Amino acid sequence: MMKPIRVGILGVGTVGGGTYTVLKRNQEEIARRAGRGIVVTMIADKDLDRARSIAEGGETVTDNAQDVVNNPEIDIIVELIGGTTIAKDLILAAIGQGKHVVTANKALLANHGTEIFAAAREKGVMVAFEAAVAGGIPIIKALRESLTANRIEWIAGIINGTANFILSEMRAKSLPFAPVLEQAQKLGYAEADPTYDIEGIDAAHKITIMSAIAFGIPVQFDKVYIEGITKLTQEDISYAEELGYRIKLLGITRRVEQGIELRVHPALVPTSRLMANVEGVMNAVVVKGDAVGATLYYGAGAGAEPTASSVIADLIDVTRMQTADPMHRVPTLSFQPDLLSDTPVLPMDAVESACYLRLQVIDKPGVLAEITRLLAECDISISAFIQKESVDEGKLVNIILLTHRTTEKNTNTAIQSIEALPVVMGKVTRIRIEELND
Amino acid sequence: MMKPIRVGILGVGTVGGGTYTVLKRNQEEIARRAGRGIVVTMIADKDLDRARSIAEGGETVTDNAQDVVNNPEIDIIVELIGGTTIAKDLILAAIGQGKHVVTANKALLANHGTEIFAAAREKGVMVAFEAAVAGGIPIIKALRESLTANRIEWIAGIINGTANFILSEMRAKSLPFAPVLEQAQKLGYAEADPTYDIEGIDAAHKITIMSAIAFGIPVQFDKVYIEGITKLTQEDISYAEELGYRIKLLGITRRVEQGIELRVHPALVPTSRLMANVEGVMNAVVVKGDAVGATLYYGAGAGAEPTASSVIADLIDVTRMQTADPMHRVPTLSFQPDLLSDTPVLPMDAVESACYLRLQVIDKPGVLAEITRLLAECDISISAFIQKESVDEGKLVNIILLTHRTTEKNTNTAIQSIEALPVVMGKVTRIRIEELND
Repeated sequence: MMKPIRVGILGVGTVGGGTYTVLKRNQEEIARRAGRGIVVTMIADKDLDRARSIAEGGETVTDNAQDVVNNPEIDIIVELIGGTTIAKDLILAAIGQGKHVVTANKALLANHGTEIFAAAREKGVMVAFEAAVAGGIPIIKALRESLTANRIEWIAGIINGTANFILSEMRAKSLPFAPVLEQAQKLGYAEADPTYDIEGIDAAHKITIMSAIAFGIPVQFDKVYIEGITKLTQEDISYAEELGYRIKLLGITRRVEQGIELRVHPALVPTSRLMANVEGVMNAVVVKGDAVGATLYYGAGAGAEPTASSVIADLIDVTRMQTADPMHRVPTLSFQPDLLSDTPVLPMDAVESACYLRLQVIDKPGVLAEITRLLAECDISISAFIQKESVDEGKLVNIILLTHRTTEKNTNTAIQSIEALPVVMGKVTRIRIEELND
Repeated sequence: MMKPIRVGILGVGTVGGGTYTVLKRNQEEIARRAGRGIVVTMIADKDLDRARSIAEGGETVTDNAQDVVNNPEIDIIVELIGGTTIAKDLILAAIGQGKHVVTANKALLANHGTEIFAAAREKGVMVAFEAAVAGGIPIIKALRESLTANRIEWIAGIINGTANFILSEMRAKSLPFAPVLEQAQKLGYAEADPTYDIEGIDAAHKITIMSAIAFGIPVQFDKVYIEGITKLTQEDISYAEELGYRIKLLGITRRVEQGIELRVHPALVPTSRLMANVEGVMNAVVVKGDAVGATLYYGAGAGAEPTASSVIADLIDVTRMQTADPMHRVPTLSFQPDLLSDTPVLPMDAVESACYLRLQVIDKPGVLAEITRLLAECDISISAFIQKESVDEGKLVNIILLTHRTTEKNTNTAIQSIEALPVVMGKVTRIRIEELND
């Protein structure tokens, strides 16, 4: 067998530690698969003590990641620092040195992927990032190498475990958002600053990357429509349930005639779908292809060892393919880089969806007629309707409407005129419906 | 771009026709991904009229598959004839000619994979078979290339759509086996001779192939324990439901201390699992890895275009990798061929599982005590118990017991002694329980 390939890890937090552990524990099976050993020879972390406590095997430890990048003995750099500044410089430097890169950095790739992939291409090295999307679920490889016969129609993913945990708990325990977030933080499922997770930004990074691979377009994070879960109420979750739906935070990208939809927002999903039954911190992605139909991929979307599983799968791929002619490796974004498409990402106004609308109205005759007239004026028809007495105030009632599919623009106009009615109190709650069946 | 790679298709039934159609329809996207075109230049089918009706593009048509294999202009042979005789000769001949092979032939690979893979290795050509297991679900690539960091612990799959359709319908419509099988045949979901599907043989072919890839062992179809669904009653399905389980035909392979379990049989799966909610002709496979935990893959397990999706993914893989040094391609069975393991496949007697037992007894005092005593003598303890009056006969009752995990040998012994009791009428129904959680 050839001598082992040498890996340097930058950043040994949760995922870095997991990667080190799994590489050691399963080293024999990994070598049997890769055809040669894969060994960590150098570890960088700004916290030197942490790096030392992990490096049981006498690996060189440093607090200067650049030393690892510059080390001519190292073949592959694993970047697990995160963020879009230092990590970017280090990855570009590694590529500059002709090293292959494995990274879990979704924020970096969603924002600067085009630059990084171009640099890698120029140097004939690989940048692999299975761990950047949906943790241990091998969705990048599925999109890039398994569904390649298909014209991809759409992707919908539960790709943020923190948000899914919160929504699952709110439903299961009939609790409002705030205490469940607190619980998630206590359990280590949410960070001290949970913004990226609960505001949909992390999911937006991931859907941006999947969209690029599915449709052969450049990564365009600035084009994603993003709406988080912070405004969801337990009330909406239970009304949705009553109507046969469950609320999930979805990352969605879809090819329509005019271009590509790219969006993250809460959505009502029919309870009978497997996606509606993905609970807790688990992730799942459905991909609809024109030949294969819908396929679904489910697993742990985060955590030390699940994410390490993806990092190491990339290490094995790079090990297998590094001797291959760069022009015959799998293209980074599935499509050959000189054949990317310029299909535009659509503005949210042009996106079509059915909606759940909840409004508080003063309970008197003619109110519903007025509301349905305003909807009709915007060409919006109604598919279901329930009326609920408001818990807090006797004279107000909650009206919940499900609308048929229409453009976002129409729905926005309708909501504005409805909110202007004197009998309607406060804002209209709008949650999009995704049937996930066409 | 390089000139197109040339493909010959042997057999243009459902999957062959689908492969031709999808290759044509999506030729532009496929070329953008593969880096060059993939074109069918020759088609063989014993039914020349069928072959002619498919070949719209002026491809050469023949009723002699050997002509395609011998054609020096053809780079890849797609074998979609099926069976283990002619298909085997043709594949070996194609390999002998230095051609790569893509096949959906599970029966052939499960029985003769070792010989075929060795021949391919000797000639430095690839044999790809994503379409052989679970139709459009990319489970072969997931096992071979994505979960490579893991020590695989077990795989459980709903990998026969016909059987799953029958069980789904029996439950949903409270019907017995026979009329549902008839309906499946009318709908084209079951063949005129349904033996392979309903007796578990097709599922056994598929689990054999997955087991080899997961554990790095040779394919050993002759070692699979196989039990079909023909003896399942609607009664058992509804008792299972009452106890919180759904009955599915599973293909299971598991690594335990003494060796590898390899089996196909109906099993009770907790209703809360996604696997229990895979309905109709859909397929799903759960893989448990030590690092990633459980991941699940779901999609269409059969049909023209879903299966074609897998055939074409293989064609693209072969196209990308054919210029690579054979020693650095992905190994056929994931593990390097000279590093396969000789871990034995265990006899069924050594397999451990919990069980559902149903017995008809004469309703008189002391019967249950006698039965539980016999179980205890075999070291079997009971986790749940229900008693039902038999619908047909007033004086008989149905007793349903769920046992804790024990060896098959113990359960067999206990069943024998229970059946020997004068108060027990007829055979004991035994269905294994798979919690799918450890």
